[in-house]
Parts: sequence; structure tokens; C-alpha cells
Amino acid sequence: MVEYDTVAIVGVGLLGGSIGLALRERRLAQKIIGIGRRQNSLDAARKVGAIDNGVTSLAQGVSQAQLIIIATPVDTIAERVIQAAAVCPATSLITDVGSTKETIVAAVDSGLASRRGGPRFVGSHPLAGDHRTGPEHARADLFEGRTVVVTPTEHTRTAAETEVVGFWQALGANVHKMAPGQHDAALALTSHVPHLAAVAMAAATPSEFLYLTATGWRDNTRIAGGDPNLWMAILAANRQHVVDGLEVLGQTVENLREALEQGDNESLLSILEAAAKKKRDRDALGD
Amino acid sequence: MVEYDTVAIVGVGLLGGSIGLALRERRLAQKIIGIGRRQNSLDAARKVGAIDNGVTSLAQGVSQAQLIIIATPVDTIAERVIQAAAVCPATSLITDVGSTKETIVAAVDSGLASRRGGPRFVGSHPLAGDHRTGPEHARADLFEGRTVVVTPTEHTRTAAETEVVGFWQALGANVHKMAPGQHDAALALTSHVPHLAAVAMAAATPSEFLYLTATGWRDNTRIAGGDPNLWMAILAANRQHVVDGLEVLGQTVENLREALEQGDNESLLSILEAAAKKKRDRDALGD
Repeated sequence: MVEYDTVAIVGVGLLGGSIGLALRERRLAQKIIGIGRRQNSLDAARKVGAIDNGVTSLAQGVSQAQLIIIATPVDTIAERVIQAAAVCPATSLITDVGSTKETIVAAVDSGLASRRGGPRFVGSHPLAGDHRTGPEHARADLFEGRTVVVTPTEHTRTAAETEVVGFWQALGANVHKMAPGQHDAALALTSHVPHLAAVAMAAATPSEFLYLTATGWRDNTRIAGGDPNLWMAILAANRQHVVDGLEVLGQTVENLREALEQGDNESLLSILEAAAKKKRDRDALGD
Repeated sequence: MVEYDTVAIVGVGLLGGSIGLALRERRLAQKIIGIGRRQNSLDAARKVGAIDNGVTSLAQGVSQAQLIIIATPVDTIAERVIQAAAVCPATSLITDVGSTKETIVAAVDSGLASRRGGPRFVGSHPLAGDHRTGPEHARADLFEGRTVVVTPTEHTRTAAETEVVGFWQALGANVHKMAPGQHDAALALTSHVPHLAAVAMAAATPSEFLYLTATGWRDNTRIAGGDPNLWMAILAANRQHVVDGLEVLGQTVENLREALEQGDNESLLSILEAAAKKKRDRDALGD
């Protein structure tokens, strides 16, 4: 990847902050501008070295940026992309880090449809994160060896696609390309439904028994502590795929219940073994 | 706790091995005998310092023991207790580490009912463990600050109960006393159903999407890699409580699905918030 003069990061939380740290550590940007609504977060991001300057004005922050990364909650991304595109250089490239893609990409495509030329947008989703949030937990190596899905559409120009892929690869990620809808269908099953499975398990545990939970429960429900409002936005943006996935999960729970109730040890063992095999197969893929 | 001359540990896996290491580190036993079916495991346990001697004969291993701990899979515990009671000193105390209690305690009570006097048994369940198994992963601090449930019954003599409680406290554990059935009902919801929730989630994830799983999925399904045969035994021993718990879990998953499908944001948010609160409440209890 070529080095950028100026990169703008809109939203300096864990992901935005980690992008800043990674760009700096790998010397991929001369100047990193953080854009956020709260001065506190911008100060924290600057303190950990994730950004050079922090501004609350989007127009001011993106005015010189060749690359703009939108790292805000999913329900605000499309709007921020369209706002940034209106005020950034016409040659800029914009991407995002949203956990859902179809709604965002469609909204951006429609919002920018009237424009000819001008800034280009390609959606991204880095499968990296933490149950901790905020720039103070940002890490320069957050994307190393991680999967990033890039979601070009039929409107995406090859040069823009290549640049976004190169950007994430320069941060150490393994990049996969998928259509936005294909991404959302897959991520419903690998991320959004697992989140709700953890939520269901935590919610279904009586408070008076919490002292009787150990490592298993804590691992199993770790992600259930995630910010409910961030998750409301993700679920709303991927509603139907998640509804379908919850049906599959509910059916699997019911299959387990039925097998156990009926003493059908063969079915029960085969589900337990299928799960253990998935774990081994996943572990074999590495980090 | 007084120091024991000889402690026998039947089954030298992660739990049995950790008890041996803890006894040694805290100088609570002069001699620790490991009893197992496979010489390999006994050798491994001796190598890490968890036992002084390893024997494959139960009769030989328990012949001098004042305290006998049965740390074998749950479906073999009751039988081992009864076998040990037939050949150990009449003044010995026997306990176990099984994840279920009602079936075991009832089987032991009925198996030893014809005896007057003789060795005493009190059931225990240390809520400690790991997804890794085997004596090579044993740790002297495995029980420090952990919860151990001790399950006396109406037949349990006070001295035996006190001794078992003292034993676990001497290993650093926080001991709670519960009736065996009460234990099993609670643990169904705090351990056995969470295990199956992880199993269901892992089993429901299509193999071709495994490369799109990240930290959330891996945390959420970590325990699903546990030995299927050990879990078959646990589930069989706590069948009805787990069936009931799976029904509650299935209903919660269905509530989430319905709220999401109908765009009932209030219900959805309230479940997400209830889950996040359970996580905070659990974290506040410490390790």
C-alpha cells in the first residue's frame, strides 16, 4: 500500500482507535485525523497515539483526507459516508467497519446515486473486536491475522476495490470479498445469532444462582455484556437473516431437548460430536 | 484442617491431579496415592507432582487412606464409592467431585444402606475446571476462591459434613451446602444448559462459514469442545432438570426471534439489558 498523506477516522472507539495505531505503527499515514462528537474520546484517542488531531467537525476533519474510515455504530454509518462524500476531496476513498453491510451499502449507493464521479465508497467489515470498547483499549495489532470482509457491488470500480483490499492487507488482515447480502447472511450465523445465544443464556439464568456459575457460563455468555444499543442497531440492520438464524438455533435447542427427554442417546451424542468437530475445525483455521 | 497421613485420589485427571497438587503445596497430606485404570495417566500425575504413588488396584490404593476422593466421570462415581467403602478403613471419609449429585448420592445411600457404621460419604462438586483435561493441566490453585457445593443429606453425620467442608476450605474454596436435588436443579441452569447452548450454537454454524467466526463465536462456543462422552454421562444423570432448562432457553430464543421479527424494540432491548445486567452482577461476585 502507498503511504497516505492524511487519513480521517470518523469514530475513535476500539476499532477506529486501533486503525489509527496500526497506521502509525506501520508508517502508512503522515497524518491521522480523528473525528468524533465527544471531545473526551478524541482526547483519549490522541493520548494513546491513535490520532494526531481530533476535531468534532466532519467537514473540517475530512477536507484533506485521501482515505476516510467510518467507524461509528452501524445505524449512523451510511449517513456519515454521505455527509463525508459531500465535503471531502473528489478523489477520496471512503470505507467503514460496520458489522452489517447490505443496508449500509444500499443506503450509500442510493444516497450517492445522483453524483457522477466524486468520492468512492467500498464497504468493509473487520472481524476483530473485543467486549471492551473505547480508544483506551485500542491495539495496533488488532487486525493482524484477522479476517476482513470487503463488500464490493456491481457499481464498485476496480481501483477502489483494490485500494480498500490493499489498505486492510497493509494492516495485516486476511481479506475476503463477498456481496453485501452474502456477508449479512453468513455473519447472522457466525456473529449475530451467537451474540443472541449468549444473551438468551445469560437472561435465562436466575439471579439467585449466579454464584453457582463457573468458567463455562462465563465464557459462554462473555459477549452478552456488549452494549445493548449497539446491538439493537446491528440486529435492526440484519433483521431477517438473524430471525432465520434464531429459528435454526431454536430448532437445534429443541432437538437437544427432545433427544435428552426421550433418552435418544444416539442423536444426543451426534449433536455433541458435531459441535466438538466444529470447534476443532475452527481451531485448525488459526486465529 | 488436620493433616492427613494418606489421601487416595481415584481418577487423576485435571480435577484429581489438581487436588493432589493443592494438598501437597499446602502440606495437608503426608502421602497421596493416585488410583487409575491407565498407567499412563498415573505416570503423568506422578511426573507433575500430583501424587506420590500410582496404583491400578482400588483395594490397594485406598487400604491406608483416611480420605478418599473419587474424581472419575459421573457415571462411575457411585460404583467407585461403594467399591472403595468395602475395602478402605472403617473410619475413612469418602467424597467426590461429580458435576451432578442427586443420582450419585441416592445410589451411594442405597448401596451403603445395609452397612452400619463404616466409611462415611458426603458428596461434593467443585465448580472449577477447564476445557482442557488430564493431569498435565492440573494446577495447585484450581480451587482457590472457587465455589464448592457440598451436598449432605438427612443421613449425613455432622462430623463427616464438617470434615468435608473443612477439606475444601483448606484448598482455598468457598463452600456452600445444598441438598443434592437443589444442587442439580441449579447446576442445570448454570452449567449443563449453558454447555448445550454452546453445543447448539456450534452445531448450528455451517462449516463453510467457520472462517467468518471471530472472538464472539469462539468465546460463546468454547465449552462446546468438551468431551462428548463425559457430557453424555452428566446429562443422563441430570436429565429432567436439563430438559426443563432447555425449554426455558428455547423459549428465550423464541422470545428474541419474535421480538426481532415483529420489530418489538422494547422487548428486544429489555432482554439484551437483562443479559448485560446478569453479566455485571456475575462479574461483581468476583472469580
